[in-house]
Amino acid sequence: MRTFTFYERASRAFDDYPSLSKFLVLFTVSGGGLVAYAEANPSTSSYTVVPSEAEAKKKKVVVLGTGWAGTSFLKNLNNPTYEVQVVSPRNYFAFTPLLPSITCGTVEARSIVEPIRRMVRKKKVDIEFSEAECIKIDAANKKIYCRSITNNNLNGTEEFAVDYDYLIISVGATVNTFNTPGVVENCHFLKEVEDAQKIRRTVIDCFERASIPTVSDEERKRILHFAIVGGGPTGVEFAAELHDFVNEDLVKLYPGIKDLVKITLLEAGDHILNMFDKRITAFAEEKFHRDGIDVKTGSMVVKVTDKEISTKDLKNGGGISTTPYGMAVWSTGIGTRPLVKDFMMQVGQANRRALATDEWLRVEGCDSIYALGDCATINQRKVMEDIAAIFSKADKDKSGTLTVKEIQEVIDDICERYPQVEIYLKNKQMRSIVDLLQASKGDVAKESIELNIEEVKSALSQVDSQMKNLPATAQVAAQQGAYLAKCFNRMEECEKNPEGPLRFRGEGRHRFRPFRYKHLGQFAPLGGEQTAAQLPGDWVSIGHSSQWLWYSIYASKQVSWRTRALVVTDWGRRFIFGRDSSRI
Amino acid sequence: MRTFTFYERASRAFDDYPSLSKFLVLFTVSGGGLVAYAEANPSTSSYTVVPSEAEAKKKKVVVLGTGWAGTSFLKNLNNPTYEVQVVSPRNYFAFTPLLPSITCGTVEARSIVEPIRRMVRKKKVDIEFSEAECIKIDAANKKIYCRSITNNNLNGTEEFAVDYDYLIISVGATVNTFNTPGVVENCHFLKEVEDAQKIRRTVIDCFERASIPTVSDEERKRILHFAIVGGGPTGVEFAAELHDFVNEDLVKLYPGIKDLVKITLLEAGDHILNMFDKRITAFAEEKFHRDGIDVKTGSMVVKVTDKEISTKDLKNGGGISTTPYGMAVWSTGIGTRPLVKDFMMQVGQANRRALATDEWLRVEGCDSIYALGDCATINQRKVMEDIAAIFSKADKDKSGTLTVKEIQEVIDDICERYPQVEIYLKNKQMRSIVDLLQASKGDVAKESIELNIEEVKSALSQVDSQMKNLPATAQVAAQQGAYLAKCFNRMEECEKNPEGPLRFRGEGRHRFRPFRYKHLGQFAPLGGEQTAAQLPGDWVSIGHSSQWLWYSIYASKQVSWRTRALVVTDWGRRFIFGRDSSRI
Repeated sequence: MRTFTFYERASRAFDDYPSLSKFLVLFTVSGGGLVAYAEANPSTSSYTVVPSEAEAKKKKVVVLGTGWAGTSFLKNLNNPTYEVQVVSPRNYFAFTPLLPSITCGTVEARSIVEPIRRMVRKKKVDIEFSEAECIKIDAANKKIYCRSITNNNLNGTEEFAVDYDYLIISVGATVNTFNTPGVVENCHFLKEVEDAQKIRRTVIDCFERASIPTVSDEERKRILHFAIVGGGPTGVEFAAELHDFVNEDLVKLYPGIKDLVKITLLEAGDHILNMFDKRITAFAEEKFHRDGIDVKTGSMVVKVTDKEISTKDLKNGGGISTTPYGMAVWSTGIGTRPLVKDFMMQVGQANRRALATDEWLRVEGCDSIYALGDCATINQRKVMEDIAAIFSKADKDKSGTLTVKEIQEVIDDICERYPQVEIYLKNKQMRSIVDLLQASKGDVAKESIELNIEEVKSALSQVDSQMKNLPATAQVAAQQGAYLAKCFNRMEECEKNPEGPLRFRGEGRHRFRPFRYKHLGQFAPLGGEQTAAQLPGDWVSIGHSSQWLWYSIYASKQVSWRTRALVVTDWGRRFIFGRDSSRI
Repeated sequence: MRTFTFYERASRAFDDYPSLSKFLVLFTVSGGGLVAYAEANPSTSSYTVVPSEAEAKKKKVVVLGTGWAGTSFLKNLNNPTYEVQVVSPRNYFAFTPLLPSITCGTVEARSIVEPIRRMVRKKKVDIEFSEAECIKIDAANKKIYCRSITNNNLNGTEEFAVDYDYLIISVGATVNTFNTPGVVENCHFLKEVEDAQKIRRTVIDCFERASIPTVSDEERKRILHFAIVGGGPTGVEFAAELHDFVNEDLVKLYPGIKDLVKITLLEAGDHILNMFDKRITAFAEEKFHRDGIDVKTGSMVVKVTDKEISTKDLKNGGGISTTPYGMAVWSTGIGTRPLVKDFMMQVGQANRRALATDEWLRVEGCDSIYALGDCATINQRKVMEDIAAIFSKADKDKSGTLTVKEIQEVIDDICERYPQVEIYLKNKQMRSIVDLLQASKGDVAKESIELNIEEVKSALSQVDSQMKNLPATAQVAAQQGAYLAKCFNRMEECEKNPEGPLRFRGEGRHRFRPFRYKHLGQFAPLGGEQTAAQLPGDWVSIGHSSQWLWYSIYASKQVSWRTRALVVTDWGRRFIFGRDSSRI
């Protein structure tokens, strides 16, 4: 009956050969974001299928969340011996780095979301999805409790329990208000697609409200004051988007009030974009100054009421000043979700911000529970804590001293198990650990070096200072998801033939290599078709060319051909027709 | 600073030459829906401009509503001697015939809306917009009272009054629930863009809820039962869209529950689409039967609870039956808005459904207030009421009888003033009124006919039976808006040289010709790329070719190049990628 076989064929071609996407983009730093769900599997449902004996033995993996980490895990998992149950209140994956673009209509919300069911439907692995929120993890009984999301029309909520063999916690984080009074009640956040849509409506509301003829000029100024709290990449990008929206589109439609618009960016630190190179920070601050965006660094927000925002001036004596505002957006960092908080209490991590895992992403103290993305941090082993074990493992002849030969035999394992060693050497411009030991030993010839444990300790004493927590970014979460999926894909294989580094505190080798984050660079769009890019190797690029690099990479990183086509057409439409200002 | 001059130029070309749109479409029945806002007027704001003496004299026109009628008026008004104030709770125009497409994501909401400010910004006429709701019309003082729409973030509502010289009421209608209990609380409507978006989310909710593993099969069946009340074009189109959405897209993503889905269309009358040709009704009923959509005619909904819908079987004795449902959509006709109801009380029209106007769209009894679109009906003059006046005006020699010559002198005026005469003649297959008089007089030769008043009365006695109210459609509203704008454009000119028909009950001629509706045909999309079209001259076409005609006309009728491009790309995207099922 269907007559559009051509279209269907075209569509199938898109789905089957994701590598076609390379034609679309000008440059790609990495194709790692592309999906491979080419294989067709006609029956992925378990509703009507009575499990056969083989299926009944399948290990049950439960994934919580459909953000970057969870989705990346699902995309990369291709071992059909698992039965996967995904539980998330959102039945879609959202390409969150484009959220600031949605707030002003540069890109439409629909263009950056992809249903999870659609992403996994052609996979060989048996994956089920439930639109529900996990409300409790019962690690003792390997069970989670879920509640289907609230809905007025469908009368109440449904609760149910799910058993698991492996649990993957990738529920992300909430907004961190630092308990500032009034923030939850009066500020907008920018974590979810709905948040961005609400901001868009509110911006238009502000302009419409300020256009009502009886509103006083003072009130108009208040309504059109947009305050953004937090000078990180999200806050900066939103400020830039808003400035472009106002100056490229809204000034034409609201000519009478355009001069009353004011955008303020409040940052408690000394500079905005402080995780970026200083050149980028300086450029951004200068550009915002030229654009008329008021950047107030050293300003800590202490209170927000419905009409006023109070800040403490950290630079000049800590005086409190109060400014009227129309709309405030809060983007100052991340906090812990209640589910994760509750689980952390259970596993004795009550005082942390995020779930501590080992380098294999396993939650500390829970063998079959993994945590990745914004809700987790990797608690890296310190060299100094294990130094005795390392020494005794390396000292094969039990002589009490290490020779260069002995060191060289374990050096790869040390570097793999303790990545801070490599970073430290790199920063000190040394080629190998032998150089480091030599430096501490003085001018002895390399071959004749022999160190006792105290000498090794003193040589390595500074190494742990290089340990850093990974940033809470999409890039980290996606790499963690992909890493974990690859571990799961080869679980049995690696059980037999471990491929990880030597266990210094135990016997044998670790099953897998530990997770290693590979930083591919970071962008900060600054508006006016200019972007700052910081790429690996301290390569910094700012301007229009970076904007095109940004377009290319963000297009190539879309999870499906559908979203890729939509995002690109959205950009094209914005160039031609401008942004829409309808209040929907 | 802007580097995209090519895009800007292209954009300007689109705006300036709307006739370019003809290239896009295959067929157009009429180009009447296209906008002409080519002229640039750099200063349309009055906020900063002190009114000059010339401006101070401008007549103030207030337009309520930004639907089809109001927008069509604004688009066609080009007399710069007016100062126009538009008041509407929606700052955009929505192309409502595509609302059913939005419910299932065939077209995106953003693609069918256009900001009013954008539509009028290049017009020569001074047009201001306020996003507010009119809450009271004070006809005695020529003033309206408005309230800016409620908004949590901006703290309370702002009230203000606006004076007018002419008031144009085009606020549309509400949903008519016929006071059926439970409808407002439990049913979805399909009047506004927000309604359509909510329906879309709820459809996905139903599928997700039915996928929760612990839900019983009976409950699953209930949740997946979609009840549509009202077999008019909207209800039928929504049923067809939903069927396509389920069968083309959702079955692939929810394979386990696809067989539980049921769509029921409830219609109190004997047939669905009863305003269409019988062939279309029969085809639609048969197609829906084949598709598995349960069409229940003669079923009047008497009660809706949160989980059940009760219907009375009008065909078989009036028994009440109750069916569980998951989502219900109510589209059974239109009711009166509170503002209009209140105003009707003021002007002595309390018992009517809509504001009565004369053939020039003036509200009866209010000289400077006009009403158009769904909130108004034209109260057409009956020939029999005016027959004495007509006779005496035609009987120039006051002989007490009318000769053919005398009749022929006024015949054009009669036909123009009383359009029912022409319709009656056409239905009786007569060429002119003389044939009608002759028929009543018997076999007398045409030239020698002479009739007294009683004979004229008896000849015309059946003529008024042809009077029909115009349907509450976008087409009628748009034509009324355009008609009224043309009257306003030539108000002074026609004051001096009236161009309307003879005033039979007064002296001289009417200023303008009365409004005449020209029916351009009607579509009923039935799903599966098939549409029924009923075009003027009883031309009926059903099938795939009509679907393409529908695509062409709906594309050509879009109010801007932006929405046209978006709607067409939405259709293309649907062909290639299917509809999105993300719950946003």
